Amino acid sequence: MKKKLLLLIFISCFFTVFTYAQYAQVYPTNWWVGMKHNKIQLIVRGDHEGLSNEKVTISYPGVTITGTHKFSNSKYLAVDISIASTAKPGTVNIVFASNGSTSKVAWPLDARRKGNGTSYAQGVQSSDFIYFLMPDRFSNGDPSNDHVAGMRDQSLNRDSIYHRHGGDMQGIINHLDYIQSLGATTLWMTPVIENDMPDRTEHGYAFTDHYKIEPRFGGEKSYLQLSNELHKRGMKLVQDAVYNHVGYYHWMLQDPPDSTWLHRWPTFTPPNYKEQVFFDPHASTAEKKQMADGWFTAQMPDVNQSNPYVANFLIEHAIWCVEKFGVDAWRIDTYKYCDLDFMNNCNQALYNEYPKITMFGENWNESVANQAYFAKNIFNTKFKSNLTGDVDFEFLFRGIQPALTQEPWGVNQLYQTASLDFLYQDPTQNVVFLDNHDMSRFFSVLDENVAKQKMAIKWLLTTRGIPQIYYGTEVLMKGISNPDGWVRLDFPGGWDGDTRNAFTGAGLSDDEMVVQNLVKTLGNYRKSSSALKTGKMMQFIPGAGVYVYFRYDNNQTIMCVMNTSDAAKTIDFTKYAERTAGFTKAISITDDKTYNTTDKPQIGSNEMWVLELKK
Amino acid sequence: MKKKLLLLIFISCFFTVFTYAQYAQVYPTNWWVGMKHNKIQLIVRGDHEGLSNEKVTISYPGVTITGTHKFSNSKYLAVDISIASTAKPGTVNIVFASNGSTSKVAWPLDARRKGNGTSYAQGVQSSDFIYFLMPDRFSNGDPSNDHVAGMRDQSLNRDSIYHRHGGDMQGIINHLDYIQSLGATTLWMTPVIENDMPDRTEHGYAFTDHYKIEPRFGGEKSYLQLSNELHKRGMKLVQDAVYNHVGYYHWMLQDPPDSTWLHRWPTFTPPNYKEQVFFDPHASTAEKKQMADGWFTAQMPDVNQSNPYVANFLIEHAIWCVEKFGVDAWRIDTYKYCDLDFMNNCNQALYNEYPKITMFGENWNESVANQAYFAKNIFNTKFKSNLTGDVDFEFLFRGIQPALTQEPWGVNQLYQTASLDFLYQDPTQNVVFLDNHDMSRFFSVLDENVAKQKMAIKWLLTTRGIPQIYYGTEVLMKGISNPDGWVRLDFPGGWDGDTRNAFTGAGLSDDEMVVQNLVKTLGNYRKSSSALKTGKMMQFIPGAGVYVYFRYDNNQTIMCVMNTSDAAKTIDFTKYAERTAGFTKAISITDDKTYNTTDKPQIGSNEMWVLELKK
Repeated sequence: MKKKLLLLIFISCFFTVFTYAQYAQVYPTNWWVGMKHNKIQLIVRGDHEGLSNEKVTISYPGVTITGTHKFSNSKYLAVDISIASTAKPGTVNIVFASNGSTSKVAWPLDARRKGNGTSYAQGVQSSDFIYFLMPDRFSNGDPSNDHVAGMRDQSLNRDSIYHRHGGDMQGIINHLDYIQSLGATTLWMTPVIENDMPDRTEHGYAFTDHYKIEPRFGGEKSYLQLSNELHKRGMKLVQDAVYNHVGYYHWMLQDPPDSTWLHRWPTFTPPNYKEQVFFDPHASTAEKKQMADGWFTAQMPDVNQSNPYVANFLIEHAIWCVEKFGVDAWRIDTYKYCDLDFMNNCNQALYNEYPKITMFGENWNESVANQAYFAKNIFNTKFKSNLTGDVDFEFLFRGIQPALTQEPWGVNQLYQTASLDFLYQDPTQNVVFLDNHDMSRFFSVLDENVAKQKMAIKWLLTTRGIPQIYYGTEVLMKGISNPDGWVRLDFPGGWDGDTRNAFTGAGLSDDEMVVQNLVKTLGNYRKSSSALKTGKMMQFIPGAGVYVYFRYDNNQTIMCVMNTSDAAKTIDFTKYAERTAGFTKAISITDDKTYNTTDKPQIGSNEMWVLELKK
Repeated sequence: MKKKLLLLIFISCFFTVFTYAQYAQVYPTNWWVGMKHNKIQLIVRGDHEGLSNEKVTISYPGVTITGTHKFSNSKYLAVDISIASTAKPGTVNIVFASNGSTSKVAWPLDARRKGNGTSYAQGVQSSDFIYFLMPDRFSNGDPSNDHVAGMRDQSLNRDSIYHRHGGDMQGIINHLDYIQSLGATTLWMTPVIENDMPDRTEHGYAFTDHYKIEPRFGGEKSYLQLSNELHKRGMKLVQDAVYNHVGYYHWMLQDPPDSTWLHRWPTFTPPNYKEQVFFDPHASTAEKKQMADGWFTAQMPDVNQSNPYVANFLIEHAIWCVEKFGVDAWRIDTYKYCDLDFMNNCNQALYNEYPKITMFGENWNESVANQAYFAKNIFNTKFKSNLTGDVDFEFLFRGIQPALTQEPWGVNQLYQTASLDFLYQDPTQNVVFLDNHDMSRFFSVLDENVAKQKMAIKWLLTTRGIPQIYYGTEVLMKGISNPDGWVRLDFPGGWDGDTRNAFTGAGLSDDEMVVQNLVKTLGNYRKSSSALKTGKMMQFIPGAGVYVYFRYDNNQTIMCVMNTSDAAKTIDFTKYAERTAGFTKAISITDDKTYNTTDKPQIGSNEMWVLELKK
C-alpha cells in the first residue's frame, strides 16, 4: 500500500512536470501570496488545439477561478483567478478536463521575496548614480553560455559589431567591485529577457518569451544572483522594459491568441517618429494611429496595448519581474511609441504594488515641452502622464552638447534648458546622461577632446537629476553611431586575454586613467554630498561662455564654474553673492586647488571647477 | 449789479482756465460718469512747492474725496476720489486752500463715449487682420505739424533713417481706403503718446507725457478723428502700450513725486534680457530683479510698477485711453521686462471695464514654452498670466523663417512650433507676423526671393491666429535691422512728390504689384472665409519639405500646400483623406487653377497653394 502510494506520488509528480512542460504554458509562470495585485489573468497557452474548450478547475484553498475567456485560437484560454489574502504558498494545480480525461498544470504560488518591496522596488533618486551597460559587450564571465543550442542566432564573433560577443551576467557579477568603485549605486542593463532572434541579438529589445531570462546571459539563475549581489552591496537594479513591441519570433506573432494582440498593417508601416501627434491640437487622427501602432522595425511588431488581455499580460509581467528579481526601478524603452493610456495604467499598477518604485522613459523628442509631456508635468491637459521622469535627451542635445560644441554661445542653451525645469513636477527624477547604446559616444561627439570630456563628466555628476554613465565612457570609449554597433564595443578587460584592461588599468593611456579617476573621485564624493544628492540648484545667466551654477542646501554649497570659451576668464566670487556670501574658501573637489573668495582667479579655456565653499 | 455778476462770472471762468494750465496738472486729465472703475486716484502735480500741504476739497454732487497721500516732493498730492453712479457730467472744481486763499483746478467729468464699450473695446480676434505702421514713416498728411515749436527734436530730414520724416495721423486717415483695400480690419500704430525726446523720436516708445497725444502726429484731435474714421468703416484700433519704461524727459525722472516711481541703480544697468529668470526654478533673485528693474536703455528709465501709486497711474491711463479714443485692443511693449503681477492687475482692470477687450504682448523669447508663460497658458504655476495672447515671435523664428530659409528640413520646425499650441489656452489669440519695426524685413531675410515672400504671405493669411502685416511688406519693402532705422523707411507715395506710389501703383515693379495683389486677394477672401477666420486647423507631418495643413469648419475646408524643397513634388489628395474625403474639386484662391481630388498634380519648388475644397 505504502509502495503503491509512493509510486502514485512519483507518477503524479512526473505527470505534473511533464504536463507543465508540454500540456500548456501559463503566464505569469507563478505568482505570490500576499500581493495587493491578487486578481490575476492567467494566459494559458496549450500545446494543442481545443484547449479553450476544456473545462478548467482549480482546487486550492484561497484560489478561485472567477472567469474564463476564449480566443479565436483554441490553443489559448484566459483564466481569471483571485488569490485570497489567506492563501498559503504551494503548488496550484490547474486541471483541464475534456472527454472524461483530465490534465494538470502545476502553477507555483510562492512566498514573497524577502523584504516585501522594501529592500527592493526602492526607486532611483538623484542621490543615485546609474551605470548602464550592455551585457553582451561588458564582460564574458561564463563562456559555457556563449552558444545555446537551438537558439536562432549562433553567431559568436567579437570581430563583428553585429554578432554576439559572449558577455553575460556572470561577467557583471565578477566586476561589481569595479562598478561600485566608480561611485555608482545602481546598475541598468539593456534587456535580459530572451531574444531568440536570428541576428542583431546583442541589444535585447526584441523579446521572444517574456517569462524567460536570456540563457546566453546566464538565465534566471544568473539574474537572481546578480540582483542579490547588488542588494548585498546596497546597490540597486534597474530593469529595461519594452512594452511597445516584441520580437518577430514571439508567439504573439507566430502563434497568437487572435489577430488583435498585435497591430496589423497591410504592408510594413513604421511609426512616423513624431511625438507631436499626441499633444498637437492640430494633429491628424491617422498620424496619431501610425505613431502609436506602427511597427518599430519589420522585426519588431507593435503590441496592441489597448487590448485588455494584452494590457493585463504586460502589467502582470512587470509586477512579476519586480517581485521575482528584486527590481528597484524601470527604464522604459520607446515610451513615446506606446499607447499612453496603457502606460499610465501599467505604471500605476506598479506604484500601487510598490509605492517607492520609480520609472524613467526613453523620450527622444524635439523640445523640453515635448519631453515633459511624457512625464509628470505641470500641464493642464486632458492626458496627464504619471511617469516618474524622463531620460533627459533635452539636457544632452539642447544642453551640455551645444555647450561644449558650439562655443561660446552654446552654453546659453544649457542655461535655457535647465530653466524649463519648471515644466516638470520633479525634474530631479530625470536621468541625465552623455551617451547610450543608440547614440554616438560623447567623447567622439567632442572630437576626442579630453578637456571637454572632463567638463562633461563634471557636469553630469553635479547637475540636477539622476546621473547615468554608459559603460566605457569613463575610459574614453569612442564611436559614432552610424551604424549603432560602433557604440557597442567591448569593455576593455571584459574578456580573458584582453590586452587592455579598464578594471586593472593595464594598458590604459594617461588620459583614460585620468578620466576614470575623475569619475571615481566625483562619483564617490557625491555619495556623501548632500548638496549634490538632494540639494537645490541655482544657475546664473552665462556670460561670454562662462556658466556658473550652484548645488546647495543648509549644510553644503557646491559651486560649479564652466568656461566653454576659447580664452581664460576671471571669476569674481562676489558676482554670485546670493550663494557665495559668508564663505571664505572655495576648495576644489577634483584637485588640490583652493581659492579665497576674495580672490579673482582665472579659469582656463575648456576648464571646469567643482568647488566646495567653506566658511 | 447784473453787470458785476457777469464780470465775476467772466473772471471766475478765466481764473479757472488759468489755474488749470498753471496751478496744477491733474492725472487722469478727466474721467467719465457711469464707469465701473469709479474710484480714481488723481495725481496732482502742482506748479509750486507746498501744494501737498494745501487743503483740497471738491464740492460736486456724487464726487467725494476719500483720502489724500503726500509724497516727498511737496508739489505732488495723490487725491483719492469716488464717483457715485448718480453723478452727472460737468466740471468738477478741485479747490486748493492755503493761508486763507483758494485756487481751483477744473476737472472734466464727461459723458461716456458713444457705445459704452460696445462699439469700441471690441478686442481683436483671428477674424481680424492687422495693418501695423509707424506714423512718422507712413504718410505726411499735414506738413503744418512737421515741426512743433518748443519740442526737443527739431529734426526733419527724410534722408536720415534717424530723423523725423513728418508722417502723421492725417496721412493715415487719407489712406484708410488703401489699408482697407488690403483686407485689413484693424490698425495698429507705434505709440502716439508724446515723445518729447531730443532724438530718435520716430519710434514713440519713450513717453514724456502720458496724457498728451504726440502733436507732430496731429495730437488728440487727429487721434480722435482717426479712431472715428476707423470705426465708421467697421475697422478697429489697437493702441501700443508702454508700461515698462518712460522717456528720460518724463516728469517721473525730471521732477518725480518721490524717488520710488522709477527703479534706481547706482550706474546705468540694463535688463539681462533673459525671461527665463521669471520661471526658472533655479533662478537667482538678483537676476530676476535686474530683468524686471533694469533700464531698457539709458534714455528709457524703468517704471516701478510695484509702487501702488505708479500702478494706479498706469492702470487709469490705460482705461482713460480706451474710453477717450475708442481703443479696441492693446499691443503691450516689452512685456517680459515688466512686473508680471502688475501686468495681471492692469490687464484685469481693463477686462473688468471692457469684457471684450484683448491685449497681446511683445515677447521675443527662447522657446514656445517661454513665450507661453507670458500669456494665458495651461501651466499649473504659481504665477498665471492673464494676457490674452502673445505677439508670436516663435511662429516666426522657429516656424515660417526656418521653413523658408533652411530647406527642406526647416519646415519641420514650423510643424513642431504649431504642435506646441497646446501650451496656450487659446493660440488663435496670438498675433502672427513676418516682420515689424525692430526686425529685418522678411523679404530681406528671404534674400529678396519673391516666390518665398509669396509663400510667407499665403501662410500668414491662412494659418491660425491674428495675422499682422507691417506697412510695406505688401510691396516688398526691404531692410536689414542693423541698425533698426533701415526697417523703418518711408512708405512709397506717402509724401507729396514721391516718384513711387504704392497707393496708386505708380512706379511699382511687377513683383511688387503681384505681391500687393496677393495680399488684397487673400486679405479680402479671408473676410468671408469662416474656415480662415474661425475654423480649426489640422496639420500633417511634413515630408521631403512639403507641408500640408487645413483650415476647416462645418461649412468650408481650405487646404494649404507648401513646397519648401528645391524640386517639384506630387500631391496625392487621398493622403489627407481625413480632410479631403467627400470633396471632388480643389479650387485655388490665388489664381484660376482647379484640381480634381483624384488627380496627383505637381507643385513646384517654392510654391504654395491655397485651395478651397468643393464637393
